[in-house]
Amino acid sequence: MKVAGVPYRTIWVEADGRSVGIIDQTKLPHSFETVTLRTAEEAAAAIRTMQVRGAPLIGATGAYGLCLALAKDHGVEAIEKAYRLLAKARPTAVNLRWALDEMRKAVARVPISERRAAAYQRAAQICEEDIAINRALGEHGLELIRQIAARKAPGEPVNILTHCNAGWLATVDWGTATAPIYQAQSRDVPIHVWVDETRPRNQGASLTAWELLQEGVPHTVIADNAGGHLMQHGRVDLCIVGTDRTTATGDVANKIGTYLKALAAHDNEVPFYVALPSPSIDWTLTDGLKQIPIEERAGAELSHIAGQMEDGRVATVRLVPEGSGLANYAFDVTPARLVTGLITERGVCAASRLGLSSLFPEMTETAKAL
Amino acid sequence: MKVAGVPYRTIWVEADGRSVGIIDQTKLPHSFETVTLRTAEEAAAAIRTMQVRGAPLIGATGAYGLCLALAKDHGVEAIEKAYRLLAKARPTAVNLRWALDEMRKAVARVPISERRAAAYQRAAQICEEDIAINRALGEHGLELIRQIAARKAPGEPVNILTHCNAGWLATVDWGTATAPIYQAQSRDVPIHVWVDETRPRNQGASLTAWELLQEGVPHTVIADNAGGHLMQHGRVDLCIVGTDRTTATGDVANKIGTYLKALAAHDNEVPFYVALPSPSIDWTLTDGLKQIPIEERAGAELSHIAGQMEDGRVATVRLVPEGSGLANYAFDVTPARLVTGLITERGVCAASRLGLSSLFPEMTETAKAL
Repeated sequence: MKVAGVPYRTIWVEADGRSVGIIDQTKLPHSFETVTLRTAEEAAAAIRTMQVRGAPLIGATGAYGLCLALAKDHGVEAIEKAYRLLAKARPTAVNLRWALDEMRKAVARVPISERRAAAYQRAAQICEEDIAINRALGEHGLELIRQIAARKAPGEPVNILTHCNAGWLATVDWGTATAPIYQAQSRDVPIHVWVDETRPRNQGASLTAWELLQEGVPHTVIADNAGGHLMQHGRVDLCIVGTDRTTATGDVANKIGTYLKALAAHDNEVPFYVALPSPSIDWTLTDGLKQIPIEERAGAELSHIAGQMEDGRVATVRLVPEGSGLANYAFDVTPARLVTGLITERGVCAASRLGLSSLFPEMTETAKAL
Repeated sequence: MKVAGVPYRTIWVEADGRSVGIIDQTKLPHSFETVTLRTAEEAAAAIRTMQVRGAPLIGATGAYGLCLALAKDHGVEAIEKAYRLLAKARPTAVNLRWALDEMRKAVARVPISERRAAAYQRAAQICEEDIAINRALGEHGLELIRQIAARKAPGEPVNILTHCNAGWLATVDWGTATAPIYQAQSRDVPIHVWVDETRPRNQGASLTAWELLQEGVPHTVIADNAGGHLMQHGRVDLCIVGTDRTTATGDVANKIGTYLKALAAHDNEVPFYVALPSPSIDWTLTDGLKQIPIEERAGAELSHIAGQMEDGRVATVRLVPEGSGLANYAFDVTPARLVTGLITERGVCAASRLGLSSLFPEMTETAKAL
């Protein structure tokens, strides 16, 4: 996607063919800065400090982190050390462990002299696979937007509400929930996006709004509290959100607050879709509410917030009186009954075991065997 | 209620028997400062700049503003001038206009020499009436809390979720949604309050949390996004919120986001109550969604936020990239079907025309005549 008119991915190999470029996402939206990673240690630090975030992008950064280790020392010990270092940078990120395992396999099957080339090749593949999934998912989602646009007066925008950042910044390119939006924008289907600010980490206000601004997509930032009111008054045609983990039965774990929007969509008959790249499906789970553990994060993410002062400097300020208790749940689970459909790279299906197995019959067999 | 152990009201006549003390609520929660108002102009400015806020407190401040004008000049012209000045300080506040009209009536029926005394007396009465309503409402609400406590193991707290600040800071004392909470606390019924931070103005995080902290009520501040997750997991026994305006049929206009919590409460069979002092009932309305206009406020309330820096200074920071659209709806309407009951100063009733008319038969007649 574009930044100030220039196409970017969230991660790339620099001109030297070795070091790796990323966008420092902790600086957004106030300043756009890229960082060059030269060692596996730097890659691990970028993941740990959330300069890169979003499951697919964390996976890609881990993969390139192993490349950086190999570029320096292609011995088995060095690779294993880098593997452990990178794996613990975000211990709960499933994609990270998966990407590192893929890298280890790719390297293991070639002679020592070809390890480096094989590693960079597999890392590039991991990125291309992510992009291909998101592009396909976006095209299927585009059809849903087109159907709504067809029922409107010509030129009248389709109003899409999204929560958190399931945007290209969380992936290598396109994003998941944003992929249909960028597809619509590129095909001149008129759209307008309601961006939930997404407390407490404000990924909507700081990342999704910034992405849409760079791509020229008309959008409006709202408090998380406002979506229900907008739906009551017919101002939302469609919700599209991302997911961190979806069960084989279609229950969706996503950023805290997603469930409240799904309830409002259901109450007002607004279609509620989840953009679901298949690696996010956990085929071993059948009850999201009971089986998906919800991460509790530091209260300081709620009591304090960083923003830009008038003089341009970024400052952190306290919002809650000292002494008050704080609880900060990162995700919630939206039951399948509230989800209109799942947009996957293979098409759109019902949020149910039947729906998912119609698109992924090979995985359903695997799940049954478990 | 108490501040650092000392009982306070939100407004009082100072020791000179003439000037009026208030708490500068714009400084909360970071510092507790009181301000002495000496003229009607100062009272109007306190309302305008939101040093005082909350419908009942705005009314009381308006009433004392007229007293201050009278203390200087008890001519009819001076009173009328002060009336106009105060009335336009918050043009949409129904209580303000009502309190000013009450004051004008009280002054009109006495000889000039007694005007000043009559004014201070009526203003004091307006304050006492507000307190009496809230105390009674709190006692009725306490019964609901007691019933839940009776079903729990001894000592296990009743978990109450509230949204925004319908606390004593919004009234003269007790508050509305907080009145049952303070009653429970004073009767040693164990409680714990989930405080929605209440974006975008953060009245929960800055005012409700501060109030509860001062009164020693156990509480936890949460993002507005978290309430649904807590209800799904049985962590909320009861919701109590305030209201800005409730229709004769029980539709409730309250701070934006209330509707989302009511949906979650309904979906999880958590009782959802509205603390409703009868002056907030608009007997002329029958359909909240269609008839209650929703104020749209400045986008800057969403894009910027004030908080305390580490050095103690208060700074305002920007959260949203420049160029993004902003929409800031102040209220939403919760349909009566999602409200378990209304807690009024006369008792608890169903959120319906029948429920309200059972408690306020005299007003129902008035409404029918309209």
